[in-house]
Amino acid sequence: MTESFDAVDIIRTKRDKGTLSPEQIDWTIDAYTRGVIADEQMAALNMAILLNGMSRAEISRWTTAMINSGERMDFSSLGKATTDKHSTGGVGDKITLPLAPLVAVFGVAVPQLSGRGLGHTGGTLDKLESIPGWRAALSNEEMMRQLADVGAVICAAGAGLAPADKKLYALRDVTGTVEAIPLIASSIMSKKIAEGTGSLVLDVKVGSGAFMKDEARARELAETMVGLGSDAGVRTVALLTNMNTPLGLTAGNAIEVEESLEVLAGGGPEDVVELTVRLAEEMLAGAGVHDADPAAALKDGRAMDVWRRMIAAQGGDPEAALPVARESETVYAPADGVLLELDALSVGVAAWRLGAGRARKEDVVQAGAGVRLHAKPGALVRAGEPLMTLLTDTPERFDRAKEALEGDVVIGPEGDRPAQQLIIDRIA
Amino acid sequence: MTESFDAVDIIRTKRDKGTLSPEQIDWTIDAYTRGVIADEQMAALNMAILLNGMSRAEISRWTTAMINSGERMDFSSLGKATTDKHSTGGVGDKITLPLAPLVAVFGVAVPQLSGRGLGHTGGTLDKLESIPGWRAALSNEEMMRQLADVGAVICAAGAGLAPADKKLYALRDVTGTVEAIPLIASSIMSKKIAEGTGSLVLDVKVGSGAFMKDEARARELAETMVGLGSDAGVRTVALLTNMNTPLGLTAGNAIEVEESLEVLAGGGPEDVVELTVRLAEEMLAGAGVHDADPAAALKDGRAMDVWRRMIAAQGGDPEAALPVARESETVYAPADGVLLELDALSVGVAAWRLGAGRARKEDVVQAGAGVRLHAKPGALVRAGEPLMTLLTDTPERFDRAKEALEGDVVIGPEGDRPAQQLIIDRIA
Repeated sequence: MTESFDAVDIIRTKRDKGTLSPEQIDWTIDAYTRGVIADEQMAALNMAILLNGMSRAEISRWTTAMINSGERMDFSSLGKATTDKHSTGGVGDKITLPLAPLVAVFGVAVPQLSGRGLGHTGGTLDKLESIPGWRAALSNEEMMRQLADVGAVICAAGAGLAPADKKLYALRDVTGTVEAIPLIASSIMSKKIAEGTGSLVLDVKVGSGAFMKDEARARELAETMVGLGSDAGVRTVALLTNMNTPLGLTAGNAIEVEESLEVLAGGGPEDVVELTVRLAEEMLAGAGVHDADPAAALKDGRAMDVWRRMIAAQGGDPEAALPVARESETVYAPADGVLLELDALSVGVAAWRLGAGRARKEDVVQAGAGVRLHAKPGALVRAGEPLMTLLTDTPERFDRAKEALEGDVVIGPEGDRPAQQLIIDRIA
Repeated sequence: MTESFDAVDIIRTKRDKGTLSPEQIDWTIDAYTRGVIADEQMAALNMAILLNGMSRAEISRWTTAMINSGERMDFSSLGKATTDKHSTGGVGDKITLPLAPLVAVFGVAVPQLSGRGLGHTGGTLDKLESIPGWRAALSNEEMMRQLADVGAVICAAGAGLAPADKKLYALRDVTGTVEAIPLIASSIMSKKIAEGTGSLVLDVKVGSGAFMKDEARARELAETMVGLGSDAGVRTVALLTNMNTPLGLTAGNAIEVEESLEVLAGGGPEDVVELTVRLAEEMLAGAGVHDADPAAALKDGRAMDVWRRMIAAQGGDPEAALPVARESETVYAPADGVLLELDALSVGVAAWRLGAGRARKEDVVQAGAGVRLHAKPGALVRAGEPLMTLLTDTPERFDRAKEALEGDVVIGPEGDRPAQQLIIDRIA
């Protein structure tokens, strides 16, 4: 990095709807990481980016600069194709748990770096940590060994990957600039590209429980990320999927592991199975495997075998009983009819308030807390039947959880329910 | 202040083109002054304001909140009308120097709080400090006494006036958010209203040497400020005036005092006299004095008498010789013809580079440095005639000053010069 720029010039350029040069972008990310650009300057630039946008070329360079702020992993010595999945986050989204071992069944390595939950969307690592003994933190060497031996690993991203993103994300969180599509896309893709996967499937959620409520914006985000993947030589496809109602029948930590085990045992809720199989097909196709039958690998126990080895390799006991919440409270159907709506955001917030999620990074989650659904939209229900069970170790939380659900369970006559597709579109 | 808000909510509201409530605005300014809102949050909010604007009601409340962050002066015990002038800054703009004593001649008090120069525009205090012994810092009591005795005071604003503005301006300076009209207008007007003047005349400069290059934006700024003044019960008018070429024949510090003395002695350049008289008429009218003849008060020495008392009251010796630059260099006309253009920005930058201005607040200015013009646009010149004299104590500065002037002195045939009005419009 020989050239130097002026931060205020760079802010002004974007403020006035100009285009940042590749050299300006490289300098911006490097200077911010080194503390030469101050937080207040980066905040002003982020707001200008949010409001005035960035060109595809700018976003691509911004992503590359974030990757170059840290280490880049390399799985080429494995001698296997690699693939990964990223979900933009939803309620009841435990798909990674059955998916990673399922894909590994077919000889493709799955280096799945995951995160913890914040707010109403759950985190994959929080869910897995409800398994006694399981640990999220692996060294690069442990990760490589597990990929070679088991074929699948779900672990925490090390601090060495895209450190610029880490600093930038914390800033965006307190400055109202999380929602900028160029910044979301580059944040996600810088980590996934630095992680060194050969192909990538993006599950971009749309709906009340998703980060993107609006299909047009979800599509724009998906297209931007697919473009960034291609620019970096990572075969990338995106599915737009429905997040107006929770995925499956559980939203929490241990209860989502339990549901994942049902799927790995060949059962489980239809929507979770459908999305798991479809994402597995996309991941395998991206890795060059076109003749696989993932649905069969769920039915015949091959995926479960990989799961057990994957959990054990990270210190977990796949046979151990999962934690159970100390207290429960049932929510009953208020009327006869068809369950027309069961809002994903409301269920997510209820689960969060019951202790399954965290409000601040420092918070500790309850393994057993969450919401178990007894009916999904479309089901016929009778007044007084159980609709949901609320679970927590701390019963003083029930009231606030029920508040979150108020008005968001809609029961009515059969004909009133609009058809909802789980998989809305595919973007490649 | 009993209510509390969330900074991120406030940023998001403005980011999404919403309107901030009066309570949100009060909280924002108070919380920022107390350090509860962080610099990075205020920077993001400022950028959102710059790009999405604020309503007249929002700007008015923002201004009031800034006033309420500090003390408010009160001149009612003087028993005289008060009036003040603010210029948005230009090159060779020494108007305050003859203007304040001129207005005081007619029994109206002029509490003129002024600033120092930054960049290519000069500062009134820097100019006056070239007078041996003169001091800018007065206590409120000294200011009151001088207003009662002499009728005019030009001094530095105390730290107690609108401290929120001081903090906010420093932030805007490093985050590319100086140019937001709502923020400029509220910054200027909060200080002027807190200063306690009964009426105010704004000299909003337009052109190459002005902060606003563009007439439409200058007009918007003027209209916004006039509205803010009226909202606060301060009779306010604005003149839009031309700043494509320097005012008068000097740009510097001591040389501008010298030119002001010529005006106070009944002479001086036509444009400086015209603007001084016109602004005096506006200030006097705002203070309820309609039968004054300021031009006569310049000719007959009454304004000079007040000037001498005003300077002496602040420790200055009105008879002392002014500092003279140690070195000079002459710039000659390259051809015969009419001087078509003499760019204000270029002359301002040349004077700045010669040592008359400062790049950072901490810099010290040279009292004698600057540019003396020998011809103004419209004048007939001959090749080899002196056009300007560059003045500095540090001759190594000549080259960079000449670079600033390169290409910006245009000489051509008579008919090619577009007419330029000094006073473009009046906004009340």
